Amino acid sequence: MNIGFIGLGLMGRPMAINIARGNHTLHIWARRAASLEPFAQFGAHAHVSAAEVAKHADIVFTCVADTPDVEAVCLGAGGIVESGKRGLVVSDSSTIAPAAARRIGAKLKEHGMAFLDAPVSGGEVGAINATLSFMVGGEETAFEKAKPFYELMGKSVTLVGASGAGQVTKACNQTVVAMTMLAVAEALTFAKKSGVDGAKVREALLGGFANSKILDHHGKKMLERNWKPGFKAWMQQKDLRIVLQSAHDLGLAMPGAAVASQLFNAMVGSGMGEEDNMAVIKLIENLAGIKE
Amino acid sequence: MNIGFIGLGLMGRPMAINIARGNHTLHIWARRAASLEPFAQFGAHAHVSAAEVAKHADIVFTCVADTPDVEAVCLGAGGIVESGKRGLVVSDSSTIAPAAARRIGAKLKEHGMAFLDAPVSGGEVGAINATLSFMVGGEETAFEKAKPFYELMGKSVTLVGASGAGQVTKACNQTVVAMTMLAVAEALTFAKKSGVDGAKVREALLGGFANSKILDHHGKKMLERNWKPGFKAWMQQKDLRIVLQSAHDLGLAMPGAAVASQLFNAMVGSGMGEEDNMAVIKLIENLAGIKE
Repeated sequence: MNIGFIGLGLMGRPMAINIARGNHTLHIWARRAASLEPFAQFGAHAHVSAAEVAKHADIVFTCVADTPDVEAVCLGAGGIVESGKRGLVVSDSSTIAPAAARRIGAKLKEHGMAFLDAPVSGGEVGAINATLSFMVGGEETAFEKAKPFYELMGKSVTLVGASGAGQVTKACNQTVVAMTMLAVAEALTFAKKSGVDGAKVREALLGGFANSKILDHHGKKMLERNWKPGFKAWMQQKDLRIVLQSAHDLGLAMPGAAVASQLFNAMVGSGMGEEDNMAVIKLIENLAGIKE
Repeated sequence: MNIGFIGLGLMGRPMAINIARGNHTLHIWARRAASLEPFAQFGAHAHVSAAEVAKHADIVFTCVADTPDVEAVCLGAGGIVESGKRGLVVSDSSTIAPAAARRIGAKLKEHGMAFLDAPVSGGEVGAINATLSFMVGGEETAFEKAKPFYELMGKSVTLVGASGAGQVTKACNQTVVAMTMLAVAEALTFAKKSGVDGAKVREALLGGFANSKILDHHGKKMLERNWKPGFKAWMQQKDLRIVLQSAHDLGLAMPGAAVASQLFNAMVGSGMGEEDNMAVIKLIENLAGIKE
């Protein structure tokens, strides 16, 4: 089977490498030519456009940034739609609005191609270690074709429902992740401001209902003052924009997600956009007069 | 060693039973005489006041509701302070403000008694199954005396720091629990309003960074529409009042905890105070026009 991979950034690059390591030959394209170079060692075929990748592939994985990027790669000039064969499966792991995913899927279907919205959770570390979670929306036959490759890139793979359901799940995921991140940030700052050892608080909380992956993994890094991304604040801001735009369209009040999104806006506004999203604790500390 | 137990409500009763089952004879008192009756089968000695319990005990556990209750039991007329011997250890598992715990501890110390603030997480189920988490503040020698009994009532026991540190930890715990609860409620409602199966969303999210005890345990119950408490909404409201009052005193902004507290206010206001705090999802659903 011929595999295409489009978008070789922070997430896409390690994901594509994990497919290549599974003894598959890749057809690749990325906006920045420099992103293609590391794949020479894997015998990958570099192409000049998404359309050229699609021409050579039975399945194409995409991992770009935002809705306009996915639309350009799939439906734009030099995009997949121009040359993908009937029966081509397109799996997109970008995080975009559920409504946009459904629209792109419907358009590709008109051309005989199947679209899977397959966003991931787990960040760069998960991409590198092949421990990502895939949340997938689309038709089962297409999903079964893509599944062996998801399993090369991740450890948890769920077909949640029809087209768009993967992005709905990702929006739910980001809601929970962002609010839990803020919760841990507020709690650890409460401890610090009260003169209590945050490491011991974290340890005690891990033993009860407050236990979460965020408290375990990110809580530890917050205490170590390790802001290396991970998952950058500007991407969390973008994902929460998608959540709240969707909530607006659905007529759904999300008071917690709304507050969290304001703090990620503030992170970007105060020059912390390139830091990991867990650095939100520094905002809470600053507001409490705690200096680094 | 003679053990006292004061406060035999939703939490205190199963906790005291777990000590009694460890082959200890209890000296007990509760505001409601009816609460004393189930302990006859364990050969417990029922007394007419907290002071009488303290007179017969080397260590006294208390589990009442709010700050005034703890103050009354420890320092009021007919309270522990009136008759506790020097060296008596008083361990309180109520959830109260850290500042109040420190104040009560200091007062008892003037009378030669040691006070441990030892609030718990895990709810009624944890109390019954002896799987509570104990977060303890106080002196190490007192903690070592109480520890074997905590281990009869719970599975996670942490001495976090000096007097008040247990309540600080509990405030951190409730902050994380309340915000995670709201996060899961918003996420599952987002899924429902988008026409996506919440059970599959939960399953997918458990595989990634959104994983938490709340998503696992309470998320499942939300999907089953099982509102049996557990931990009642009015108690969560009370605990968040303590968190935000403490944040006020510390000069600490807790935007996420503040929003969560408003929703638990609304639960109590709309007649849901006696339901489990996870029923907060019904508020979010109602606002989105989803009928039960």
